[in-house]
Amino acid sequence: MTVTIIGIGLIGGSIAIGLYESGFATEIIGVEASEKHAQKALDLGLVNRILPLDEAIAASDMVIVATPVNSLTTLLPIVLDKIRNQVVLEVGSTKMNVAEAVKSHPKRQNFIATHPMAGTEFSGPEAAIPKLFEGKVCVLCDVEQCSHGTKELVEKMYKNLKMRVIYMDSENHDVHTAYISHISHITSFALALTVLEKEKDEDAIFDLASTGFQSTVRLAKSNPDTWIPIFEQNRDNVLDVLDEHIHILSTMRSHLIKRRFTEFYEMIEKANDIRRILK
Amino acid sequence: MTVTIIGIGLIGGSIAIGLYESGFATEIIGVEASEKHAQKALDLGLVNRILPLDEAIAASDMVIVATPVNSLTTLLPIVLDKIRNQVVLEVGSTKMNVAEAVKSHPKRQNFIATHPMAGTEFSGPEAAIPKLFEGKVCVLCDVEQCSHGTKELVEKMYKNLKMRVIYMDSENHDVHTAYISHISHITSFALALTVLEKEKDEDAIFDLASTGFQSTVRLAKSNPDTWIPIFEQNRDNVLDVLDEHIHILSTMRSHLIKRRFTEFYEMIEKANDIRRILK
Repeated sequence: MTVTIIGIGLIGGSIAIGLYESGFATEIIGVEASEKHAQKALDLGLVNRILPLDEAIAASDMVIVATPVNSLTTLLPIVLDKIRNQVVLEVGSTKMNVAEAVKSHPKRQNFIATHPMAGTEFSGPEAAIPKLFEGKVCVLCDVEQCSHGTKELVEKMYKNLKMRVIYMDSENHDVHTAYISHISHITSFALALTVLEKEKDEDAIFDLASTGFQSTVRLAKSNPDTWIPIFEQNRDNVLDVLDEHIHILSTMRSHLIKRRFTEFYEMIEKANDIRRILK
Repeated sequence: MTVTIIGIGLIGGSIAIGLYESGFATEIIGVEASEKHAQKALDLGLVNRILPLDEAIAASDMVIVATPVNSLTTLLPIVLDKIRNQVVLEVGSTKMNVAEAVKSHPKRQNFIATHPMAGTEFSGPEAAIPKLFEGKVCVLCDVEQCSHGTKELVEKMYKNLKMRVIYMDSENHDVHTAYISHISHITSFALALTVLEKEKDEDAIFDLASTGFQSTVRLAKSNPDTWIPIFEQNRDNVLDVLDEHIHILSTMRSHLIKRRFTEFYEMIEKANDIRRILK
């Protein structure tokens, strides 16, 4: 099968590796807005060819859109306009915007919105790695709106990436990902800014950064080109969970100011509850 | 050399393993307030013997105090009262309280305050692991106040744990660790509480927890018995950095509310700067 991937970055590139290595794809065609990324993707052997959008779609059986989420509302209808009967999917981190953009398209049933829950703090074609998705979860959204064949092929594709597939509607997807994934990026960006603002001695940061700090601040290295569009598309849910987060930090602050260490202790005991869910 | 370790938890137990395996200690004596932990430390072979405090000190050449930081101000003077000419050190995460507690003790020069910057989110003797300290940094505080022999022996000890030693006074230590280590624990505890509060669907947390979320929330599994005393002892510095952290999150919130995504983008670009310091 020939697969076109639009956007050969961390996610698109890692999908390319996985689909080629598993044998699901016999040829990968890349579509890339950045000439530099296109050349890099060829040099790294992530794709067999780079083609313009029209030619790529015409030559392939499946089209995967892996561009930042702000481009999807414009790009997806264009892609769907150009297909004959190929399957189209996108792999972004927000879904309500996508659902809205494709909802009345005549080719709606050829399309499926997916969210492979995997990534690293790096970006671009050189960030693409084998096995990024292995053992992770992929969310398929609003599957009742695509054809049986579309769903089956996409499920087979994610099985080839060794992912576990779960199902959700777009609205729930955006709420849950804000509550779990998007807020952790916010806290990590804010932690990095806090440390950079308060700690002017960079040697101290380097020397005193234990594995604990490094683990908490890791996501702060993530690309704003990926994340600002996510915060923009999922603004209301992110605000909702951010309000709660600021409220909790303010409560901790009051406990510290008033030396209420028993209450603070109880908060931390409650936080430890995360152990029950994440071993 | 016979080494007594008071408090055989994650840190004390891991030191025991490291000093015994490296040959620095030929015998490790444990002192443990918890009978359960004492038995566990013996069962796991972390210590050769468990003894009461007086007997342990009398039988050893070096005494390492590895109890929660709130116990140090009482415990350290007691230990120093009981030594002949042995070397005493503690391994806690705050230093001003320690400096104050020992400053006019006649045996002050036998003592050194140290902070091995290593740990995990687990606690107790069963959390002790080999190589916990390898390649990490250990801070030695106020070394001008201990004898040359004390300093030399403790440096040799940390070399046996394969740590890189740096020097700081207590005041700077507490400022820097608040800015880097203590605030990352606060953000992680607060993130766990936020997710547990907002996300009532625990299956969703389990399913959608990517490696990114898991990495950011990892420290939230840490023990309140360790961390509340640290926040208590280092309250003023923690409050100072927490205020900045809340201020930054509130700025992000305003940007979201007012849809100022260019300014939000610039904040994240600035947060990315942490890459320069932590590869």
